[in-house]
Amino acid sequence: MALVVQKYGGTSMGSIDRIKNVAKRVAKTYDAGNDMIVVVSAMSGETNKLVALANETCEFPDNREYDVLVAAGEQVSIALLAMCLKSMGYKAKSYHGWQVPIITDSVFSKARVEEIPDKNVRADLKDGVIVVVAGFQGIDRDGNVTTLGRGGSDTSAVAMAAALKADVCEIYTDVDGVYTTDPNICQDARKVEKISYEEMLELASLGAKVLQIRSVEFAKKYDVDIHVRSSFNDNPGTMVTKEDKDMEAVLVSGIAYDKNEAKIAVMHVPDKPGIAAKILSPLSDANISVDMIVQNVSEAGNTDFTFTVTKADFKKALAITRETSKEIDAKDVVTDENISKISIVGVGMRSHAGVATKMFQSLAREGINIQMISTSEIKVSVVIDAKYTELAVRILHDAFGMSGN
Amino acid sequence: MALVVQKYGGTSMGSIDRIKNVAKRVAKTYDAGNDMIVVVSAMSGETNKLVALANETCEFPDNREYDVLVAAGEQVSIALLAMCLKSMGYKAKSYHGWQVPIITDSVFSKARVEEIPDKNVRADLKDGVIVVVAGFQGIDRDGNVTTLGRGGSDTSAVAMAAALKADVCEIYTDVDGVYTTDPNICQDARKVEKISYEEMLELASLGAKVLQIRSVEFAKKYDVDIHVRSSFNDNPGTMVTKEDKDMEAVLVSGIAYDKNEAKIAVMHVPDKPGIAAKILSPLSDANISVDMIVQNVSEAGNTDFTFTVTKADFKKALAITRETSKEIDAKDVVTDENISKISIVGVGMRSHAGVATKMFQSLAREGINIQMISTSEIKVSVVIDAKYTELAVRILHDAFGMSGN
Repeated sequence: MALVVQKYGGTSMGSIDRIKNVAKRVAKTYDAGNDMIVVVSAMSGETNKLVALANETCEFPDNREYDVLVAAGEQVSIALLAMCLKSMGYKAKSYHGWQVPIITDSVFSKARVEEIPDKNVRADLKDGVIVVVAGFQGIDRDGNVTTLGRGGSDTSAVAMAAALKADVCEIYTDVDGVYTTDPNICQDARKVEKISYEEMLELASLGAKVLQIRSVEFAKKYDVDIHVRSSFNDNPGTMVTKEDKDMEAVLVSGIAYDKNEAKIAVMHVPDKPGIAAKILSPLSDANISVDMIVQNVSEAGNTDFTFTVTKADFKKALAITRETSKEIDAKDVVTDENISKISIVGVGMRSHAGVATKMFQSLAREGINIQMISTSEIKVSVVIDAKYTELAVRILHDAFGMSGN
Repeated sequence: MALVVQKYGGTSMGSIDRIKNVAKRVAKTYDAGNDMIVVVSAMSGETNKLVALANETCEFPDNREYDVLVAAGEQVSIALLAMCLKSMGYKAKSYHGWQVPIITDSVFSKARVEEIPDKNVRADLKDGVIVVVAGFQGIDRDGNVTTLGRGGSDTSAVAMAAALKADVCEIYTDVDGVYTTDPNICQDARKVEKISYEEMLELASLGAKVLQIRSVEFAKKYDVDIHVRSSFNDNPGTMVTKEDKDMEAVLVSGIAYDKNEAKIAVMHVPDKPGIAAKILSPLSDANISVDMIVQNVSEAGNTDFTFTVTKADFKKALAITRETSKEIDAKDVVTDENISKISIVGVGMRSHAGVATKMFQSLAREGINIQMISTSEIKVSVVIDAKYTELAVRILHDAFGMSGN
């Protein structure tokens, strides 16, 4: 007998019919002789409705109360799923975050899981009860309701799996796994059977929306295997797990793109020590994350300093940067919102030279100009003109022989 | 400095604009130098939406999960009101039922408040925090979420007022007090300045929707004066309080009607000791409250046994009664959902004879047939055909000289 954690997202929980479908899937796994913990998200659209209400009250709704508000969606889901399971004759019990309890820090809307005492859940599992847990929700040590950020139910599931030492953690979503790239762009995209935590982290943060980044960090830290699969069919999905030999044989395991960034370039900056810090500190003070950063070779004592931020932060970042550029005597601030970041990811890069070169050559052959480059041990990202996004993805998918056939 | 408890119902909390309006009222009382506890209901319509979802899952949704589900509405309200108050510069903090905690028994959907430790709330009040409490919600001693029944937020407010020894308990609603009868039916209906707990109890349980019954029981038990008033104007409302001499001078203080019951008659029951118990115990075991009960005079060893239940319980009650009727060899079970209960209420009846007779005569004069009768010290109720409801109310209001002029 195994302990299985299953997580169902908002689309899978989107209507009573779909919730009944989820109940059937859960029951099937339970009937096969497993102990079951099911983590669920709010019905699709519900959290957005609650956020809209908050934004109607005032410009910056209070953080503590915001979490109280948005946590309501998951409460509805756990009750409905437990009802369905019970009406089918199963023992089931819903748990709010505070009832588990999923103890977090007190950073509202972005709380981190600190501890999950397993006594309550363990007792129910022993009685054969299917435990239905509200994803996304936590409670801090002062008894305040917290939430784990958008997509936080993934983290709830992985954290439950880690705390209860589950044998399997299945994340059900509306796609049936992690693909080599977006199948909407590239018909040849192929489902990946197995991918390392590191690769998944790069893919998640680079725009593949399958899993919340933090859930993968959590899984890596506590060594939880995540099986990503679809709630609409029975296909095997993708296993996110520790790196192994097989994975290293593959040069590039995924291609991600992100159209959600904008570029800011500070032109003709005096090339003196401390300039990068001068430009970037006011941004981090304003809680703006800078993604790619490029500084050109100095020319006559001047250099260009370019970076990207998310489009949501763009306006604010630009205003701050204009201020800074005056202070440091830069010539100009130039921006571009029509950019796209294309990234190739694979642990195989560690042991294979020439992957970046092959990427650049493939793009060049099609006349696609590279505006910025950034690399890590297992990834190469380039910024290009947004209009070439789909073309670039297809070229690279082909160049690295990633299609299924 | 006084401690004021205010309760706002679903209509008062029906939109963000209305919630802002509630925030202004609360702020005004706070600014006048009072400590404040505000108890709120779900936004109007929300609880019904949740109930509809529950009914979609199966015919008889699980009780525990039902409470988890329907409690979600109040969670949204407390967060939104606290947000509004904070955006206006006030200290405010939302409390779920479990955070107060409002400790109840474990009868889901109809839980009774057992105890309210005041430590948490008292500490916040001392810090000048406006405490915003979710009405309707409780928590049992095993940590399960419970709810206090429809209209339960009134009870939450009175219970908070009793536990914290508040000086005033104001229940804000969409009418500006308790009327001699429903002004929608009877233009002459008059607002009552002061009414006893006993009368209010009879009026509440008989369908006057101003206050939940249990809140009045609670107020009576703990001697809490309730001021019922409108959140849409500043008119004085109705004070619900201990009985006094003035009240006894009035023969009938209110006329209520209730179209929300259905009649079940078990025909030709063998007239043996223990039959009533045999029919009613399975119903109470299923937590169904039976309201009026009439057993006819025995005829050839057989009798008819008739009772009413709420329409919500009707289906379940009928199924149970059909089972019982087989067991006790009754001839048939007959039902009627088109009934209405009309009641006249007044502490003055205790010292005045002939009130019931006058009621029956007035109805007979208009040709309205009485199907069932039930009386108490301060009330007479009759069941009639639902189509005569409005007519009966107007006749009786007139007959007992209750109009304002």
